[in-house]
Amino acid sequence: MAGLTEDRTRGWFRGARETTQLDLTTGAPAGAQPTRAIGGTHATVQVDRDQLPGVAAAEPRTDAFPAAEPVVRTVEQHLDLILAAAPTPDPIQLAVLDAQGLLCAEHVVSSRDLPAFEQAALDGYAARASDTVGATPEQPVGLAVVGESVAGPAEPSAIGPGLAHRVTAGAMLPTGADVVVPTVWTDGGAVHVGVQAELVPGTYVRHAGDDVAVGDTAVAEGSPIGPAQISLLAAVGRDRVLVHPRPRIAVLCAGNELVDVGTTPGPGQVVDVNSYALAAAARDAGAEAYRSGIVPRDRRKLVELLESQLLRSDVVLIAGTFAGGGFDLVQEALAQLGEVTFAQVAMHPGPVQAFGRLGRDGVPVICIPGEPAAALVAFEVFVRPAIRLMLGKRQLFRRTVQAVSAQQLLSPLGYRQYLHGQVMRHPDGGYVVEPVGGGESGHDAALARTARSNCLVVIDEDVTEVSPGGLVTVMPMLLGG
Amino acid sequence: MAGLTEDRTRGWFRGARETTQLDLTTGAPAGAQPTRAIGGTHATVQVDRDQLPGVAAAEPRTDAFPAAEPVVRTVEQHLDLILAAAPTPDPIQLAVLDAQGLLCAEHVVSSRDLPAFEQAALDGYAARASDTVGATPEQPVGLAVVGESVAGPAEPSAIGPGLAHRVTAGAMLPTGADVVVPTVWTDGGAVHVGVQAELVPGTYVRHAGDDVAVGDTAVAEGSPIGPAQISLLAAVGRDRVLVHPRPRIAVLCAGNELVDVGTTPGPGQVVDVNSYALAAAARDAGAEAYRSGIVPRDRRKLVELLESQLLRSDVVLIAGTFAGGGFDLVQEALAQLGEVTFAQVAMHPGPVQAFGRLGRDGVPVICIPGEPAAALVAFEVFVRPAIRLMLGKRQLFRRTVQAVSAQQLLSPLGYRQYLHGQVMRHPDGGYVVEPVGGGESGHDAALARTARSNCLVVIDEDVTEVSPGGLVTVMPMLLGG
Repeated sequence: MAGLTEDRTRGWFRGARETTQLDLTTGAPAGAQPTRAIGGTHATVQVDRDQLPGVAAAEPRTDAFPAAEPVVRTVEQHLDLILAAAPTPDPIQLAVLDAQGLLCAEHVVSSRDLPAFEQAALDGYAARASDTVGATPEQPVGLAVVGESVAGPAEPSAIGPGLAHRVTAGAMLPTGADVVVPTVWTDGGAVHVGVQAELVPGTYVRHAGDDVAVGDTAVAEGSPIGPAQISLLAAVGRDRVLVHPRPRIAVLCAGNELVDVGTTPGPGQVVDVNSYALAAAARDAGAEAYRSGIVPRDRRKLVELLESQLLRSDVVLIAGTFAGGGFDLVQEALAQLGEVTFAQVAMHPGPVQAFGRLGRDGVPVICIPGEPAAALVAFEVFVRPAIRLMLGKRQLFRRTVQAVSAQQLLSPLGYRQYLHGQVMRHPDGGYVVEPVGGGESGHDAALARTARSNCLVVIDEDVTEVSPGGLVTVMPMLLGG
Repeated sequence: MAGLTEDRTRGWFRGARETTQLDLTTGAPAGAQPTRAIGGTHATVQVDRDQLPGVAAAEPRTDAFPAAEPVVRTVEQHLDLILAAAPTPDPIQLAVLDAQGLLCAEHVVSSRDLPAFEQAALDGYAARASDTVGATPEQPVGLAVVGESVAGPAEPSAIGPGLAHRVTAGAMLPTGADVVVPTVWTDGGAVHVGVQAELVPGTYVRHAGDDVAVGDTAVAEGSPIGPAQISLLAAVGRDRVLVHPRPRIAVLCAGNELVDVGTTPGPGQVVDVNSYALAAAARDAGAEAYRSGIVPRDRRKLVELLESQLLRSDVVLIAGTFAGGGFDLVQEALAQLGEVTFAQVAMHPGPVQAFGRLGRDGVPVICIPGEPAAALVAFEVFVRPAIRLMLGKRQLFRRTVQAVSAQQLLSPLGYRQYLHGQVMRHPDGGYVVEPVGGGESGHDAALARTARSNCLVVIDEDVTEVSPGGLVTVMPMLLGG
């Protein structure tokens, strides 16, 4: 349990050095002398990856606190660990309406023909094609109208040569009829009808099995279930369907400073916002989220809480595990229940992340930073893809677009940086983006700014500067409006 | 109640003539002689709107069934009527997590500063900027570490000149301190610390109210509520928020031919798929949908059912009102409860649409075709925008894109045509689209094809032909995958 013994005061900052040294938009270390020059006016400063000092290349520790070396990972390495461990919940049977938005987990084969019987495709006259030979508007063919069929339960009927039935769309076709003459191609007669066009057999007739035949796949395994699939399932007689269920995710928050939203925070206290925001984000990603709120500050109670969550969850998500005074308690409880490795991930914000498995079933536990903006970034980067994987989705990641940066962006070398931004369509086409933060130091936690953002700007590890007008990768996070 | 007395056998087909005459992809009226030549090889055939025969220009009726002239409308006219009548449900208070995806209906003003107190933005040493003057890595300034503050409830502390406190991110800053020196800019000392940089006052300090000050708007009226807004609401102490609620929509289906999904259809019968598909589509659009299923075939019971739906619904949606044998019964029941006008809307599929108001409160009722693919088109065109309007959304319509048509498309003159299609990204950029139907006649009802579509192709009223390679408007309807 290497990660559990880390030095929390210092260890995390070694690799994070570049991050803390830079004011991320101005490049100046907010009042201190710059520790390296920010070069050039290139749109994008690229650094040879082989030349990267690398987060693992920190100098030997010199302070007095002995501690295990922190585990160091790239974003991809940490994500891969999480995705590899994401369980695949067993498919469940749901009522078709409850299956909406989920992926089908069975091959639904039709035991019915759709349509089930030969029927009129529109309102008109059921007739025999052979009777219409030579018919034109000038020389219509006259037929005797001997019956009427509307859509609905019906006794089989039949017509012979020279006869017709009035029919409505969906009505069962009389035996002997092989065309439906649209009303507009007739004189609309009630007793005798003049047909003004010659029709080939089958015209405006829906044949049994035209849409789906017995044995056809109605809905294939892996299909996302939307209104049209629900239609089709109902049509083949299915009111329930096997689907990949929503993964159940328990959302907990740790931190001595936290109070629940109903409590007015005292000195040094802040409201727990993460359990709300992360539960909302998890639902938005397709999970069933259980908000457990702030974890108890008693180790035995905390272990009991975690154990109860393990029973009903596919994944446990904890924010703030390594923040402030709650640190040891939560890490100890986690250590008691399984193996959790705290790692320094080469990203900003939130370089400290953890992942492990708890309990007899090895339920994955993902620990993310407690700082709200960093928590939402970590959710996007690590948790949302895991939820989508558990849902069975093939596309785990948000679509990204390239956007023109409206202002200079600086990024710590060796870290993938995620900035909350606002992306807009550019008048000349394409997109333009700017970060929502003003670039002042210490504002990672700015909730109001995060709430104004509609995207994450992603700046690669080897890019330290994006000039105004340079291209950056943007991950739009659409909210309805 | 003009529309209620229409001749159902004939009246609908007069304006719909162009539609029924054409096999929509080949242009040939499936076996009959073409009634007009399909001209040219232009990418798009445009017709002068002034020259349009127009749906109102049908010749005088010659048959024996006296009937009121059908009301004739464009898609926009019918939509405008519906949108103008869409009620704005009163805002309701919801728990913040239940507000997700809805629009805020109040101006949430903060009565708190966020942060609430001056705090460290990161781990390090709280100190006085004046003590760091002249500090460099070569000539560090030494300070005595006289305390430690972690995030969490705390008694106020203070430091004087020459002193420092170890602090963690989020910890309350001691009085007297005006900077936080990141650990990496020090020697990390526990009793004495060597500071290696000169800091201006305020560096790495989060000031009270930096993010949100007392009196600031935390969440503005009309903002969509997502995870970040939920964060902000919780942070200002709100566990409930006033929102525009999901409109409640009752979904009913009429048609003598219908049986519920649990019943094996007999001769002439088909499974009710619309009440499922439309309830799913309504939920997907943001409504709370009540699926009532197939309406009773007894007029008194039907009126009772409608009355009970009016009490709990913002909108009533009925599919199949004018199909087959259910026609008179449903129209009579509607006439008893209010005013409903059946109109011929210049669109394909589904030219017959109806709209009216029922009951004392004038609850809007939208009647759409019963043919499943046409019902889903009508939902997209008329119902989804109304639901979004009731939700308070500004963007009522799906985004459209221009796509290259992979094959020839024909469209009836004077009608806006909607085809279910598959749109894909073109290897050379842009999009390419093809209809999911093979173009055979009588296949509007093909559920399996509808289920394979991911967009609607929209062909304007004055366009009769789109050649392969021509541009068409496409409305992507994304499903997760």
